Amino acid sequence: MRPSGVLTLLTDFGTQDPFVGVMKGVVLKQSARLSIVDLTHAIEPQHVGDAAFWLAHAFPWFPEGTVHVAVVDPGVGTARRAIAAQAGGHFFVAPDNGLLEVVARRTSDFEAREIDAEDLGLRPPSRTFHGRDLFAPVGALLASGTLAFDGVGPRATLLATTHVPEPVHAGRSARGAVVVVDRFGNLITNLSESGLFAASRARVSVLGHDLAVVGTFADVPPGTLAALVGSFGELEIFVRNGSAAAVLSAQRGTPVGVSW
Amino acid sequence: MRPSGVLTLLTDFGTQDPFVGVMKGVVLKQSARLSIVDLTHAIEPQHVGDAAFWLAHAFPWFPEGTVHVAVVDPGVGTARRAIAAQAGGHFFVAPDNGLLEVVARRTSDFEAREIDAEDLGLRPPSRTFHGRDLFAPVGALLASGTLAFDGVGPRATLLATTHVPEPVHAGRSARGAVVVVDRFGNLITNLSESGLFAASRARVSVLGHDLAVVGTFADVPPGTLAALVGSFGELEIFVRNGSAAAVLSAQRGTPVGVSW
Amino acid sequence: MRPSGVLTLLTDFGTQDPFVGVMKGVVLKQSARLSIVDLTHAIEPQHVGDAAFWLAHAFPWFPEGTVHVAVVDPGVGTARRAIAAQAGGHFFVAPDNGLLEVVARRTSDFEAREIDAEDLGLRPPSRTFHGRDLFAPVGALLASGTLAFDGVGPRATLLATTHVPEPVHAGRSARGAVVVVDRFGNLITNLSESGLFAASRARVSVLGHDLAVVGTFADVPPGTLAALVGSFGELEIFVRNGSAAAVLSAQRGTPVGVSW
Repeated sequence: MRPSGVLTLLTDFGTQDPFVGVMKGVVLKQSARLSIVDLTHAIEPQHVGDAAFWLAHAFPWFPEGTVHVAVVDPGVGTARRAIAAQAGGHFFVAPDNGLLEVVARRTSDFEAREIDAEDLGLRPPSRTFHGRDLFAPVGALLASGTLAFDGVGPRATLLATTHVPEPVHAGRSARGAVVVVDRFGNLITNLSESGLFAASRARVSVLGHDLAVVGTFADVPPGTLAALVGSFGELEIFVRNGSAAAVLSAQRGTPVGVSW
Repeated sequence: MRPSGVLTLLTDFGTQDPFVGVMKGVVLKQSARLSIVDLTHAIEPQHVGDAAFWLAHAFPWFPEGTVHVAVVDPGVGTARRAIAAQAGGHFFVAPDNGLLEVVARRTSDFEAREIDAEDLGLRPPSRTFHGRDLFAPVGALLASGTLAFDGVGPRATLLATTHVPEPVHAGRSARGAVVVVDRFGNLITNLSESGLFAASRARVSVLGHDLAVVGTFADVPPGTLAALVGSFGELEIFVRNGSAAAVLSAQRGTPVGVSW
Repeated sequence: MRPSGVLTLLTDFGTQDPFVGVMKGVVLKQSARLSIVDLTHAIEPQHVGDAAFWLAHAFPWFPEGTVHVAVVDPGVGTARRAIAAQAGGHFFVAPDNGLLEVVARRTSDFEAREIDAEDLGLRPPSRTFHGRDLFAPVGALLASGTLAFDGVGPRATLLATTHVPEPVHAGRSARGAVVVVDRFGNLITNLSESGLFAASRARVSVLGHDLAVVGTFADVPPGTLAALVGSFGELEIFVRNGSAAAVLSAQRGTPVGVSW
């Protein structure tokens, strides 16, 4: 797979301090021609699940051969491994803590390698900022074509994690949960069964409410609570011009059922 | 007009979730060489007026041939039209909901076309994320030179809107309003009459206060309320080292008068 | 020194309004091929010290020949000078208000010149937005190779400032202070003596607490207050999975001692 020259960053570093800027400096020091795109740096600190969810949903929209560097890393400086992976026509670089679990689940050709920093000639990383010292440099080596995927290190199997749960099916119904709350307060669930949502009579249940599935936000009056199939394919619960999270006091993990 | 290779984005999507990152992926999938610049993604959700104001003030500072993609789109998924426009040496792509009203008002060569997604070979967009499925792709087609402006679709006239009002003149005075509050709490008005501000005796009235027009923030002591002509040419009301919005309890729509 | 084609921006303008986007437009108008990287735009308004600290820590991670444009500028529109500098293989453009004091202190080859806007053919800048009208244009001229450093203007000596204090040494101890609080609430100090931190018995005192120096965040249990040598070389005080700033009610200027 040829690198596209594009590298994305996904972290929980925020944008108040120049941590992300410094990572970009490191990338451009490797090759000043790379295009760097921020996915987000506002992942709730150390919340690997949100990062895993968004990474899996965002990557397919980039050119084939893009390198996605994701750093939400509560175990920085400990023995947790650093991983590079290849899947679905893209590269990924991340700590081995579940950040790649949704990408691995959703691709059929997922292949991981453990990063061998010493063998790659990287200087010993600090014990607190592997985004700068390990993940950005490896991402830049892959994105610039200086390092082939096979050269990253030995083959590896991801740590088994379940930050983002999967739903349970039973006949013409399924039980899932809210997995991410977006900035508008929309509740994004893990319910994305194909076929389900074609049924115009699908009903969604959440915290005692029984909701219809509509086509778009403007299909209901302002203030109304309803559900729709969101732009990434999952069932979402929303309040038009409002926050479903606030109205329902719902959050990650809130159970959601659907029947059709 | 030749595209400059630069494409700007202006949305109300925020930067918490990777919606903007995904739009950039779509743009770079069309051409990985484009330069993408964020104008802002912090427009108050669905506040078309603020977006219209800032778009008109920001675009002239970019290279001629830049494509400006603006998405504040309460009507996404409904029958509202999608528009591409050409004006003042720049391209614009936006929903037809008033987002381009200030650009249209301030340029003498404004020309709009309705985007015909099917004719452009775009796959049917989702009903909730036209930023990704319609506006970013069309912007990238224009910015990469793959699509000529004439090929966007049929000529169109913008929907008549007045999100950003115009002031009323009467002799040596004018009555306008606050149209945007910036992040420092400065109150930016719609008063920008040429000639007005040369008069050293101009006085500004707002919520019972009578203010002098000074040259720069540091011309008054800290904590002082005053007015100046801002860097984009409009009369602004400020508190040095403070927030005029907070001090005056002023907001969008607060009436402001000026006489000279 | 050859420009790298990379230009960074560091301001207190925030990202709510398109001020930073407009600066990027100005840069790209000079040369659409430049790569622009945000260090941060969330410097507390007018807090020159935080900007000076981060600029000095971030710049070495960029390719040699990068231009760093920094604008935290309470004196905009007054007689304060505008400066371009060359140091450590990088270029800097900033107001002469202390923003470059830490860079100057940490480099051995610091050389400054006063920007002569008229001589450079820049149009007279607004009195409130020199980021757009002066600093971004000069940065772009340097980054594109259009202007040589010697051509910026006459040699200049920086205004003497101490926004970021230096620690005081006494034998096997030193007294310093918190100089920056990062977004996680970690307290970054000005204590970075080489040799100090190799001593495994170093003890840190802050607000009556006596703390050990550990290797990384995960070396202590969640909720624990401790110290470590941060990724930029300074002693930092942290609470694992928490905010040391909140736990200690500490802030910029809080005294910190270390002995070993």
